[in-house]
Amino acid sequence: MKIDVLTLFPEMFTALEHSIVGKARHKGIIKLTCHNFRENAANARHVDDEPYGGGQGMLLCAQPIFDTFEKIAAKKPRVLLLDPAGKRFNQSYAEELAKEDELIFICGHYEGYDERIKTLVTDEVSLGDFVLTGGELAAMTIIDATVRLIPEVIGKAISHQEDSFSSGLLEYPQYTRPYEYRGMKVPDVLMSGHHANIRKWRLEQSLRKTYQRRPDLLENYCLTEEERQLLEEIKNEL
Amino acid sequence: MKIDVLTLFPEMFTALEHSIVGKARHKGIIKLTCHNFRENAANARHVDDEPYGGGQGMLLCAQPIFDTFEKIAAKKPRVLLLDPAGKRFNQSYAEELAKEDELIFICGHYEGYDERIKTLVTDEVSLGDFVLTGGELAAMTIIDATVRLIPEVIGKAISHQEDSFSSGLLEYPQYTRPYEYRGMKVPDVLMSGHHANIRKWRLEQSLRKTYQRRPDLLENYCLTEEERQLLEEIKNEL
Repeated sequence: MKIDVLTLFPEMFTALEHSIVGKARHKGIIKLTCHNFRENAANARHVDDEPYGGGQGMLLCAQPIFDTFEKIAAKKPRVLLLDPAGKRFNQSYAEELAKEDELIFICGHYEGYDERIKTLVTDEVSLGDFVLTGGELAAMTIIDATVRLIPEVIGKAISHQEDSFSSGLLEYPQYTRPYEYRGMKVPDVLMSGHHANIRKWRLEQSLRKTYQRRPDLLENYCLTEEERQLLEEIKNEL
Repeated sequence: MKIDVLTLFPEMFTALEHSIVGKARHKGIIKLTCHNFRENAANARHVDDEPYGGGQGMLLCAQPIFDTFEKIAAKKPRVLLLDPAGKRFNQSYAEELAKEDELIFICGHYEGYDERIKTLVTDEVSLGDFVLTGGELAAMTIIDATVRLIPEVIGKAISHQEDSFSSGLLEYPQYTRPYEYRGMKVPDVLMSGHHANIRKWRLEQSLRKTYQRRPDLLENYCLTEEERQLLEEIKNEL
């Protein structure tokens, strides 16, 4: 996958040189390039100007972004603009992006950008209902969530079949050694070696957590008969 | 504000040395320290182990995180654990965190962590319904959204009163020089110099965008009489 990022802060993207995304780059599975569009500003490296009609703050101009965009060789890329008014990013969006050959991210900064920049864009995308100082951290977050889904990136594809959201339920609690830590013990069932009971306990815990914290996820979830019964018991108990 | 981060990838946090958060650090408004909990692992720097009860992947052990946590001098900090099953981060959450004196972030990694780590935590927090390779980018995103709200950080406090979400509506389109770019012109009203018309156009655009993209935001929004009338016209038109 080829990923290009238009940003005023390419140095921030060194965060993606580490861990799983870093390894995917070193293996050549993804090629990530940052382009500082300040370098293509026609007007003495000025990238921003005052808003027409008045108002606080400075807006990113169209020209440096258009000219940088055109220098990136790309066939028919998805072009993502980070904006809090965009479509909410989620796991199925990540799965969709993970199938693309080329992604381009445009990171806004300062107080906003010239609306005409949107004519370059296929996706206005938002991480959530909050405002960042720029699009960089949102772009990195989306890249991280997307790249880990590329089949070659995490060896055991099975690993993310059990993630929260991939199954449609939140994850059950997990424990590792030691059995007792600071007086806190691992639940007996996990020590029992009884696989059927462990499976059922985990399923019950996932259903309980999802029901208590995110009942909205259950609305679109197709319950098996076993799950339906477990959920009934949880509802009666609470 | 004092911010401590427990992470296996402190190098990733160099992303917060730039731009607005970087400036806030240089001015001493925030003090951000990363602690690699691998350094406090009792067992030959091993931080993870297999899950009790079987299953894929490795879990972060409690001990390195507990011991690192205790070395951080903190009075009564908010302790945030990044987890996709946590409470959804949003602008009002950021406003709440911006009032704190001390924040501690615990970044999970690999496939999960020992449930007992949660006994250290005041807030399980999620960026959204997607899975990351680790909590680092989520922590940085939350830090960025929070730090920009600290009054001394962005000089003109007015700057974020007009953000999306701060007003309760999405932002209206903005334009800057030149008037015409690649055949695309700035809307006439913004060139008119007529302040009352500009204000009304912007309000109408904000309402229209919010109604079309995020009608849920209008449910909790208290409309003025002018806004109610404009919204009625938008609804009739569409």
